[in-house]
Amino acid sequence: MIKYPLGFKKEKIDENKKHVNYKNRGLSLESLINDANKYYEVNDIAFIYKKPTPIHIVKTDKENTIIKAYFEKPSTTDYNGLYKGKYIDFEAKETKSKTSFNLNNFQPKQITHLKNIDKSGGIAFIIIYFKEYDEYCLYLAKDMFNYLEKENKKSISYKEIKEKGEVIPLTLAPILDYLKIIDKLFF
Amino acid sequence: MIKYPLGFKKEKIDENKKHVNYKNRGLSLESLINDANKYYEVNDIAFIYKKPTPIHIVKTDKENTIIKAYFEKPSTTDYNGLYKGKYIDFEAKETKSKTSFNLNNFQPKQITHLKNIDKSGGIAFIIIYFKEYDEYCLYLAKDMFNYLEKENKKSISYKEIKEKGEVIPLTLAPILDYLKIIDKLFF
Repeated sequence: MIKYPLGFKKEKIDENKKHVNYKNRGLSLESLINDANKYYEVNDIAFIYKKPTPIHIVKTDKENTIIKAYFEKPSTTDYNGLYKGKYIDFEAKETKSKTSFNLNNFQPKQITHLKNIDKSGGIAFIIIYFKEYDEYCLYLAKDMFNYLEKENKKSISYKEIKEKGEVIPLTLAPILDYLKIIDKLFF
Repeated sequence: MIKYPLGFKKEKIDENKKHVNYKNRGLSLESLINDANKYYEVNDIAFIYKKPTPIHIVKTDKENTIIKAYFEKPSTTDYNGLYKGKYIDFEAKETKSKTSFNLNNFQPKQITHLKNIDKSGGIAFIIIYFKEYDEYCLYLAKDMFNYLEKENKKSISYKEIKEKGEVIPLTLAPILDYLKIIDKLFF
């Protein structure tokens, strides 16, 4: 768990830096999203949860402790839920690249899943954290599939994500208020 | 996995029995629902999945095999997804009782979750399998909360579930076509 909101202090901005750097604060993308989801839940704003990691259990002991199990590949995205009566579904990924987001960050089934949700009236997107720019971008699955159709590539350029997507501004509560972007785009 | 649809043959109806008995066929409620969800997915009807069981991992070995982990209590329902643009959320339970469904079949957090989803414009329900009657009932969370408010009980009577809920008829593909009931009630 991250300390929040007390642990959150804006860094003094160094004029030579383009971006405020939170990289070494231990605020992982996953913890920022879980934290936002918790905030949304307790304030009756949205009910969005991270799915548990799928695991194949091989053996348990007499006390029902798991003593042998394997991690499985996810076939859907990590996060889904309900916001303003709409079905929300997304995946969150970090990248060190400065120029693009590589689709091999996803399992092929996750891409199919995002396509299914987008086609069927859900709000499907990805949140990409560009570590080198310290930017959290929300990019709609719809835009991703349009881009991939045109470009026939295995990655999405940073330029495209910045043009079509939205940078999620960091705020106090919750820090990564990604539903603000969903409001802007859908409501 | 259940054998299906080849493994599905209607039993010869014994006139002395009130209900056709599938109890010993190994068609567990979970496998029937997973099977229906698979059918909905491959036919582009709905995208509804069972969430993996939440597990607290204590130890993994060098090959990333889990060698110690515990089962955790779920804080949401087992199933959620998207159908006709609507957010769907439900829990499925079996009971041996002939007279009622006891709420201690749920974790308290699951009840809160169903309430949240119902309030916020999602379609929230439970599927209860009454083993003794061999009946699969779909009962809306809304009706459950209305009943509990009036009755102040820790269980829901079979009578109430039969009156307000709907028995899911068994069909060929998928066997437990529970979205038929959702169509009837919402679309």
